[in-house]
Amino acid sequence: MDRIPVLKMGAFLLVTIQVDMQDRQAMTLQDDLTHMVNAHQSRGVLIDISALDMVDSFMGRMLATIASITSIMDAQTVVVGMQPAVAITLVELGLSLPGVLTALNVEKGMELLRSRLVPSHDDSGDDDADD
Amino acid sequence: MDRIPVLKMGAFLLVTIQVDMQDRQAMTLQDDLTHMVNAHQSRGVLIDISALDMVDSFMGRMLATIASITSIMDAQTVVVGMQPAVAITLVELGLSLPGVLTALNVEKGMELLRSRLVPSHDDSGDDDADD
Repeated sequence: MDRIPVLKMGAFLLVTIQVDMQDRQAMTLQDDLTHMVNAHQSRGVLIDISALDMVDSFMGRMLATIASITSIMDAQTVVVGMQPAVAITLVELGLSLPGVLTALNVEKGMELLRSRLVPSHDDSGDDDADD
Repeated sequence: MDRIPVLKMGAFLLVTIQVDMQDRQAMTLQDDLTHMVNAHQSRGVLIDISALDMVDSFMGRMLATIASITSIMDAQTVVVGMQPAVAITLVELGLSLPGVLTALNVEKGMELLRSRLVPSHDDSGDDDADD
């Protein structure tokens, strides 16, 4: 029970973090995630942290690291479901998660990824700003 | 950290079980799930248990109970990602999960739900068997 499952949902991957991760779990998650991004050519990673009441600097750095890795692999990372206390703590820790998009919940995160990755889906697609 | 998040994904709800649930957690999950089925008028519930290496009779009964409750509320439950050892144990325990659909992973579970709930999606829609 020391492995956090990575769920493939179409072009995206979904991870739900429910426990305080240990170092080993975080490493395993990074490995699994990068492996699955590679294997399934995923364009986006959703990390749901709605179950986290609080967060420490380790978890914050882990999120930032995963986002950096997936960004290098051309997959956009969206952290969803962040609770107010977690957001406050992250900023107080100086971890503003550069390069990580955030969304209120998984649905909005999916919408965000779709709008970013499929610009010519339904709109005129005039957004050319990507980071 | 004693609450298992229920994620809304369109018309469906997704629960990822990663820990051995205690009684209280299971009760909370039932409450959350029924509340969300009611609030969002969800037609399907996906329960991912790919992180479970083993399962006991309590967990098996919990899955069966949740499926019964959501079925009464007109939402189909699909258990996805069941590992071989878990399937063996469930059958050995006499818990064959009546009324619960299963699928290999979340994607196939979603397809299953869509095919059940939207019969006239792309096919001729001649399946009239529902349980």
